Amino acid sequence: MKYENMSAEQLNAEKDKLQAEYDKLKAEDLKLNMARGILSRKQLDLTQDMLGLLKVPEDCISEDGVDCRNYGMLEGIPEARKLFADILGVPVNNIIVGGNSSLNLMYDSIARAMLYGVAGGSRPWGVQGEIKFLCPVPGYDRHFTICESLGIDMITVPMTADGPDMDEVEKLVSSDKSIKGIWCVPKYSNPEGTVYSDETVRRFASLRPAADDFRIFWDNAYVVHSFEGDPADQLNLFEEAKKFGNEDIVYIFASTSKISYPGSGISAFAASDANIAFVRKQMSAQTIGPDKLNQLRHVKFFGSAQGILDHMKKHAEIIAPKFALIEKAFTDQLTDAGVAEWTHPKGGYFVSLNVLPGTAARVFTLMTELGIKLTPVGATFPYHKDPDDKNLRIAPTYPPLEELETAVNALCICVKLAAAEKILNV
Amino acid sequence: MKYENMSAEQLNAEKDKLQAEYDKLKAEDLKLNMARGILSRKQLDLTQDMLGLLKVPEDCISEDGVDCRNYGMLEGIPEARKLFADILGVPVNNIIVGGNSSLNLMYDSIARAMLYGVAGGSRPWGVQGEIKFLCPVPGYDRHFTICESLGIDMITVPMTADGPDMDEVEKLVSSDKSIKGIWCVPKYSNPEGTVYSDETVRRFASLRPAADDFRIFWDNAYVVHSFEGDPADQLNLFEEAKKFGNEDIVYIFASTSKISYPGSGISAFAASDANIAFVRKQMSAQTIGPDKLNQLRHVKFFGSAQGILDHMKKHAEIIAPKFALIEKAFTDQLTDAGVAEWTHPKGGYFVSLNVLPGTAARVFTLMTELGIKLTPVGATFPYHKDPDDKNLRIAPTYPPLEELETAVNALCICVKLAAAEKILNV
Repeated sequence: MKYENMSAEQLNAEKDKLQAEYDKLKAEDLKLNMARGILSRKQLDLTQDMLGLLKVPEDCISEDGVDCRNYGMLEGIPEARKLFADILGVPVNNIIVGGNSSLNLMYDSIARAMLYGVAGGSRPWGVQGEIKFLCPVPGYDRHFTICESLGIDMITVPMTADGPDMDEVEKLVSSDKSIKGIWCVPKYSNPEGTVYSDETVRRFASLRPAADDFRIFWDNAYVVHSFEGDPADQLNLFEEAKKFGNEDIVYIFASTSKISYPGSGISAFAASDANIAFVRKQMSAQTIGPDKLNQLRHVKFFGSAQGILDHMKKHAEIIAPKFALIEKAFTDQLTDAGVAEWTHPKGGYFVSLNVLPGTAARVFTLMTELGIKLTPVGATFPYHKDPDDKNLRIAPTYPPLEELETAVNALCICVKLAAAEKILNV
Repeated sequence: MKYENMSAEQLNAEKDKLQAEYDKLKAEDLKLNMARGILSRKQLDLTQDMLGLLKVPEDCISEDGVDCRNYGMLEGIPEARKLFADILGVPVNNIIVGGNSSLNLMYDSIARAMLYGVAGGSRPWGVQGEIKFLCPVPGYDRHFTICESLGIDMITVPMTADGPDMDEVEKLVSSDKSIKGIWCVPKYSNPEGTVYSDETVRRFASLRPAADDFRIFWDNAYVVHSFEGDPADQLNLFEEAKKFGNEDIVYIFASTSKISYPGSGISAFAASDANIAFVRKQMSAQTIGPDKLNQLRHVKFFGSAQGILDHMKKHAEIIAPKFALIEKAFTDQLTDAGVAEWTHPKGGYFVSLNVLPGTAARVFTLMTELGIKLTPVGATFPYHKDPDDKNLRIAPTYPPLEELETAVNALCICVKLAAAEKILNV
């Protein structure tokens, strides 16, 4: 029975039952972690052979004859650029391959815009007074942290099943010059696992920003990261934007953080000719070039974009059961009470769980006291402020299945307990 | 006989002889490169075994049990921090180990100062109007490029045999609030190979800047890079600055670019507690952490600071003969003419050659027409402007000995030919 339909007596009995289960769990002295979307040990082991691929000096030469041990090649080695070009559907010349962190590429892109402006823009963002970013919510906390760190105001836009609410995005972007960017995770979004629809991609491609220095930050973090069925097809923003003469407003990011290694992968930035030329000039003051040996390792190991797609099936085998476990536990344990909704992703790293409004923080506290780490409440909103106190990001990939089961069962108890408390106004 | 003491007739004859030698060289269609301080193939091969050190997953665990393949550890792994701590003489907690480029750490340090200011400073550099850096000359072109890129004015300060002219440095820094930093390569400076004296280090340590947000950029790029005799002893700036309560004005940088690999080494930033805490906060918005596997490779290969010192002897064996060849060629071929002076470094990567004022650009052109690449004229000065048109940076490490011999003999001919032309006012 739904909690909202229960009598006070019934709900009190339910609460007492949940409290007893909770107390039992507490005595177990758990220590579990579902806080972040990190790879499990098994997933990390999948690419172990990559680390031994560069044996003799001859292994360290790029396809165009450059010794990758030495300086140079600011844009990365050609074969790594081709790898990302094929994955992102962007020409090789529009790709820069960087170091181990696409977050770093994103931060640096914004820092550069603050200091120098962007291609075709009139002035650096940093001298224009108050500037703003649109933040579809719930979203990725590290995107929001970049804006917060650099003093960029954040305006939330609600997510729909097709991506950000594009009516709202178009209205804001076309009317306010101080809006300089929007954060997007277009495929298997963080945390909901939403795949932006083709219509959404088209509307992004045809945006007419009021600002002459607006950019879409298209963080394609999960571009090949499906774990159920085939990778979702999605219209290519770069190609679509070209049709509207709009390719300069697009910045695309990707990495192998969840393909090879979170700590030691490689990353990519894709953008128009004008953007690449503009950014390249500033990058040449910042560095002589990325770690090319690590790029070579990746190319030798994966071979091609198809090699990466094949490899992702191995990841899927490991993580799909974890998502299935979450789905089953939520369905079995939360449906009847009617106090939660959650997403059903087919890719990415997260499930978005909306609990009874006003109880997310309580659920987090209850879980923390059990010894189970969740993503901090509010992390999916700018300034860590979830206006409804209801969203929790569930990250099931790291714990082994048996630990995950313990954790998610505990979570269901906490969600219901917090809801009962709330309704009873305890 | 010195050219200045020759009669016009004598000098004309000399010029004709040099021109004939030059024309003969030109017919040889050379293709040689002495442009940059890069490692030769032999040097790169010295660390080949490093690349295969991480074989099984267990090899990827840091000494404190962290799986280096995954996210995290913003400051780098403890054992890599200790390695740099020992080399730089700075406590482990004052070290951040980064990616493959100390240039990147330097650029980011200045970009951050522009955007956020520095620890204890009142405002970001970027909102203070015109700001300036002191640039000892001749110096490192990539330092100057960072300032130029970010619109920071550069004021030159002459180098002496003991380092920058400290009378000048003290006068400027203590009187002008808009001076925010100074570039230093304290050991085996680029390009002169000068080792700053202990007195110079002490005067840096006790600077009293007018600005509350001034920093010494102490680029210790060649801290263990001696090739003749023992590594030079040098007073520890960090320790000395502490004695004056001045440790916050010190930023120290180093890397293994010329120890392991220019493209795939690791880098370090060393600074006071206050600086590390301040910078760490902003770095945490920029990245989740550096490539820890590459840090592990380095620690496993070198073992300790002593291991690095031992390894540097192998580099010395390869490059010392190249510097000896330069010294001998200059002595044999340039002394009599009296048209050049050069430095006699015992470490680092360069020889600084001062030719007859007004002829450096001509020498460069003559060399280029022979097919020999030199570091561009003016590179050792801000804005690429050598006021006397006399300084050339000689980078002998990359070419094999026999090629280097051809190149330096050609250089001596060009230096003399350009001088004869100049004196004869051709």
